[in-house]
Amino acid sequence: MKKEILVIGGGPAGIITATTAKKTYPEKTVAVVRKEKTGLVPCGIPYIFGTLNSVDANIMGIKPAENLGVEFIIDEVTAVDFERKTVLIKSGNKIEYEKLVFATGSKPVLPPIEGKELKGVFTIAKNKEYMEEVFNFAKSAKRVVIVGGGFIGIEVGDEIRKMGKEVAIVEAMPHLLPAAFDEEFGKVAEEKLAEHGTSIKTNIRVSKILGSESVTGIEFEDGKNLPADMIIFATGYKPNTGLVQNLDIHLGYSGAIWVDEYMRTSVRDVFAVGDCAEHKDFFTRKPSRLMLASTAVFDARVAGANLYHLKVVRENHGNLGVFSTSIEGLTLGAVGMTERTACAEGFECVIGEAKSVDRHPGTLPDKSPLYVKLVFSKESGLLLGAQIAGGKSVGEMINILGLGLQMGVTANDLVTMQIGTHPLLTSAPTAYPLVLAAESAIMKLR
Amino acid sequence: MKKEILVIGGGPAGIITATTAKKTYPEKTVAVVRKEKTGLVPCGIPYIFGTLNSVDANIMGIKPAENLGVEFIIDEVTAVDFERKTVLIKSGNKIEYEKLVFATGSKPVLPPIEGKELKGVFTIAKNKEYMEEVFNFAKSAKRVVIVGGGFIGIEVGDEIRKMGKEVAIVEAMPHLLPAAFDEEFGKVAEEKLAEHGTSIKTNIRVSKILGSESVTGIEFEDGKNLPADMIIFATGYKPNTGLVQNLDIHLGYSGAIWVDEYMRTSVRDVFAVGDCAEHKDFFTRKPSRLMLASTAVFDARVAGANLYHLKVVRENHGNLGVFSTSIEGLTLGAVGMTERTACAEGFECVIGEAKSVDRHPGTLPDKSPLYVKLVFSKESGLLLGAQIAGGKSVGEMINILGLGLQMGVTANDLVTMQIGTHPLLTSAPTAYPLVLAAESAIMKLR
Repeated sequence: MKKEILVIGGGPAGIITATTAKKTYPEKTVAVVRKEKTGLVPCGIPYIFGTLNSVDANIMGIKPAENLGVEFIIDEVTAVDFERKTVLIKSGNKIEYEKLVFATGSKPVLPPIEGKELKGVFTIAKNKEYMEEVFNFAKSAKRVVIVGGGFIGIEVGDEIRKMGKEVAIVEAMPHLLPAAFDEEFGKVAEEKLAEHGTSIKTNIRVSKILGSESVTGIEFEDGKNLPADMIIFATGYKPNTGLVQNLDIHLGYSGAIWVDEYMRTSVRDVFAVGDCAEHKDFFTRKPSRLMLASTAVFDARVAGANLYHLKVVRENHGNLGVFSTSIEGLTLGAVGMTERTACAEGFECVIGEAKSVDRHPGTLPDKSPLYVKLVFSKESGLLLGAQIAGGKSVGEMINILGLGLQMGVTANDLVTMQIGTHPLLTSAPTAYPLVLAAESAIMKLR
Repeated sequence: MKKEILVIGGGPAGIITATTAKKTYPEKTVAVVRKEKTGLVPCGIPYIFGTLNSVDANIMGIKPAENLGVEFIIDEVTAVDFERKTVLIKSGNKIEYEKLVFATGSKPVLPPIEGKELKGVFTIAKNKEYMEEVFNFAKSAKRVVIVGGGFIGIEVGDEIRKMGKEVAIVEAMPHLLPAAFDEEFGKVAEEKLAEHGTSIKTNIRVSKILGSESVTGIEFEDGKNLPADMIIFATGYKPNTGLVQNLDIHLGYSGAIWVDEYMRTSVRDVFAVGDCAEHKDFFTRKPSRLMLASTAVFDARVAGANLYHLKVVRENHGNLGVFSTSIEGLTLGAVGMTERTACAEGFECVIGEAKSVDRHPGTLPDKSPLYVKLVFSKESGLLLGAQIAGGKSVGEMINILGLGLQMGVTANDLVTMQIGTHPLLTSAPTAYPLVLAAESAIMKLR
């Protein structure tokens, strides 16, 4: 059979590549081959443990894509022939393509540590059957250790604690969320988690997992140990490139599939999007290890539109990480570089900071304090990064700065930014923290 | 006495002009003359009726300004002498200035209607004593009619209804919120208010107020009437320019004080900011009737920085209205032009629309549907305006588009916008409505 546009992988990157392709080239046949009949909402996975209390409540529907005319083939690609422009699927069929898109995603990394094969050791995988196993095991666990204090680690930890379990989060770096936030924000997250009963251990490395058949605990490099009957590794993901390992396609520095600004691989008519593709950092254009559903979907919108004709207006000049998370009423958002990463890269920076409250007057109920930190280039005043701690409004506030950063916003633009404010929704116009933080940076530049 | 920088008026525009001036020119003496010892948070005024249930809970503090070194003189300016660079205050003192800033605000407009002097007829003024009177009268009222279905009308109406009163909102245009929103959004507001028991009458004009001493009702042009013991006019404001009426200073087309891009009036060393200054529309540069605390504060940041030296980076190229309101869990946000106003101005437009939900998966609690409408220029793809209906996150989502609009964002920028998404805070990355709405506009342009 022939599918003019064939996408391998049906996560967010695959589905959005297919729908964008179908919208852009409605006359073409578009198909997605994926192993799983039912896929999960990737960012929703932590919430199956506590808030949703169900794996089935976290399903990513394919109906909207099917309604557009995208076909889903539930099968597994076993081989790809770039020469003949065909793929082979497990059921024995061969599918011919005009344009092929790899959207094969990523797999969790389990560090090479003694005891990692013991019963009770898990990762967080984007696979329904596996996550059902993890969820069911968690139900009967008593003491759970999460290794890795990034977004997934703290979200999963907090949600399992909500199931009534004793939870410890272990992080090798001095603070939680070290990749996206500076120390002061990591501390805020630590305090909030601790306040709700999660035990936090930072600046400590795991040396082995204890137990004979089942996990009984975890041992640290300093010789101390922590009893546990379940251990979850949230220590990152690696690109899933098994299918192309023996093929003549260029892999990038990070081991992911190299792509150009239009998500084209080194092979004619073959594209790659999402976690299996090598991304460039937005600022330095160095390889980026960013793996987010939101950046995957961005890739997908670029690839889907450019499959047959380059739409110059849609390019991937580099992936910008825009992050947010919400723990027990505390929302943290970050975009671009932290002060630490900017300094490490060699940027000369000036920092703007402001504190405010997200309602006005402050006597209104439902208010949260807001803390904003902005990192600007000292020379140009260009925004390089932002971090915000506050209430739920931070989820969209960080997107203001995300778009601003993509449009080249400067401290002067932000200080005279015209804003919408409302008593029940935002800070006062006189105390809008993005403006005040930009102002504080400008004052330092004088 | 001499105050090098003298600001007349102590609302948000006056206070932020003074604090910006003090931050920019710390060596200068900065004083604000204002009549009121205690000022109100202007946008908080509707909430004194229901949510706050107190006028005192809605005070705008001057401590932060005082801490910066801004002096407050509680008095009233009675005369200004531009020649001698002095102002006279009621207590008899004369104050010399180097730079003078008018921040005298606006006054509510009461239309020339029969019966407007009756007991029980009010406006919404930014004055504590007056609002205490309105609040106290409302406590004993039974049936309240609000004339004017703009932001203040619907917010005050909904809050007075929360006090247990029978409330009707009367609007001459076919729908509520006609200035900032297209019809479909006005309808959503009408439905929400009606659902909670407020009576809505649109497309109807008031002809007179009934009663002999006290109000007994209101009569419409069609002869029908509505009984009421309290009537509140929320029919707009006019610039408060009494002080300059007989002075040689140029007033603009709208009757407000004319200013240039740095908020300088036609008189040397004299500036004007906020509601008493004439603004230009962001798109057409025509006089704008926009009177918002947020735009006033923007003026203030421009004026305060430019008092002695022009900081070219801070200019007012035109005021952009960014609006939001929240009624009974429904949040409405708008920025720039509606489809109707853009068409009326002669812009050739293309509309993008999208529906989504502000959590993912949609099974999460606390979710609200989101509806986004974007107005783009057909020729350039530039964003001209946006309207959003949804939950509380709309309050900051509209600021994404506000900043985007100020930075010249296009449909193509938005469709490849890199966003931050989180299950508990935003739509899914695959269904982020700003991206989908931009995509729908692009599809129409093909």
